[in-house]
Amino acid sequence: MAIAGQDTTTADAVSFEDMRVLTAVAARQAIRDGRYDGQTAGIGLGHLQGNLVILPVDYALDFFRYCQRNSTACPLVGVSDTGNPMLSTLGADIDVRTDVPAYNVYHDGKFAAQVTDIGGLWRNDLVAFVLGCSFTFEDALMAKGIPLRHIDQNRTVSMYRTGIDTVPAGPFSGGMVVSMRPLKAADVIRASEITARYPDAHGAPIHFGDPAAIGIADIKQPDWGDPVDILGDEVPVFWACGVTPQVAVRTARPSLCITHAPGRMLITDTRL
Amino acid sequence: MAIAGQDTTTADAVSFEDMRVLTAVAARQAIRDGRYDGQTAGIGLGHLQGNLVILPVDYALDFFRYCQRNSTACPLVGVSDTGNPMLSTLGADIDVRTDVPAYNVYHDGKFAAQVTDIGGLWRNDLVAFVLGCSFTFEDALMAKGIPLRHIDQNRTVSMYRTGIDTVPAGPFSGGMVVSMRPLKAADVIRASEITARYPDAHGAPIHFGDPAAIGIADIKQPDWGDPVDILGDEVPVFWACGVTPQVAVRTARPSLCITHAPGRMLITDTRL
Repeated sequence: MAIAGQDTTTADAVSFEDMRVLTAVAARQAIRDGRYDGQTAGIGLGHLQGNLVILPVDYALDFFRYCQRNSTACPLVGVSDTGNPMLSTLGADIDVRTDVPAYNVYHDGKFAAQVTDIGGLWRNDLVAFVLGCSFTFEDALMAKGIPLRHIDQNRTVSMYRTGIDTVPAGPFSGGMVVSMRPLKAADVIRASEITARYPDAHGAPIHFGDPAAIGIADIKQPDWGDPVDILGDEVPVFWACGVTPQVAVRTARPSLCITHAPGRMLITDTRL
Repeated sequence: MAIAGQDTTTADAVSFEDMRVLTAVAARQAIRDGRYDGQTAGIGLGHLQGNLVILPVDYALDFFRYCQRNSTACPLVGVSDTGNPMLSTLGADIDVRTDVPAYNVYHDGKFAAQVTDIGGLWRNDLVAFVLGCSFTFEDALMAKGIPLRHIDQNRTVSMYRTGIDTVPAGPFSGGMVVSMRPLKAADVIRASEITARYPDAHGAPIHFGDPAAIGIADIKQPDWGDPVDILGDEVPVFWACGVTPQVAVRTARPSLCITHAPGRMLITDTRL
């Protein structure tokens, strides 16, 4: 398997297993080359991964406020200059138009398309926001011997809309989205302690146990990602999730919004 | 000494010592009533204190980016809606026009006046940014038995411009400003450990020891605040400072900018 210099038109797809052994830079190059469009949990370990929200500049100030007011769900780690697709504060060569495995495009708050490249959609009035992602701390959890089922099973982490309201800013508002990982009770406290060290990646869990307590009706039916089994000796543990702004965007109905596809994140050069 | 219901036109000034025994809400009321215009270190202990930067909305997005890119010096803890002087995310009743002891007013980046009330200057296009302040963690340092000379001597903490460049955003750029506290060597490590727990208040020190290593020519001549003595068994310890954006504002030269006067902070309701 070679990455550098390969003609993308004839490039072979890279498997999830092969992506896991690449460095962050090489993994991002494979994504840029159109050779991988899958989920990024477990890829580029040791590097900050980010959720992406791209908006026209007219919405940027209110969205900035929304992230500042809801920083557990929306921890901003990088914001582009208006019209500039390069995220220079997150890496030497990160192009937001090509470096995410898959993008969701919304018009007036409605899902329009999923694409793997937004070069043709980029405009001079767009601002890209990158929000820290819980994939970031999964490396630390696994390093401490806490197994994560969705990674072991190559599924996208389960995500749910909750009844927890976010603090509004301008047109942006809505319920918090959470990601869920089933853990043995003995690991819940250790996982809380470990993830609390990553405030740029949602920090400690916001809840564990009864899903109904935070407004989740059916734990077996995630709103995004894949269902995972919860074994008899496990408890569901919930972290604030960077898909939260995607709900706020549906409420705000901006003329255009481009996000990462859930589970398919931007891998940055920032070391944890 | 009574606060509530007192006519502000006949109100007696409240001394620093009397301010120190008031709750955060009562201390802020004394400031709003025009009865205290001094420095706020050691007042409203246990509550987040904030640096203030008010800008016209045309500068707000770039300033937001500047804070995000330089979050050690500029940790955003609250941002107002455009034209709204109430900081609802930081307390039940915080009016940015009256609740800071003293304000510096800049026109085109040049200092124009120091005032104790900005009711007459407020406009519908202004946005107020509040940045966490190192005063916030001084409580924790003192609680752990680490003495702080400027508080003991009722002086404003010493602040210096450094040669450390910040990451620019639009028109905002410039050297980082630091605050300095002299500590015994044995306390430097403990103080680093304690302040690291407060990322919203500049976190751990950025330097200790030789002032010249970060571009400070004369430790006895702070650029803001008062000089304090450094005893023979003490080391100067430097933290990133929320006055940093005031330097960036001088570079950006916005038509109008209003900040807190150095050392005279906004006391919020947010508990540490």
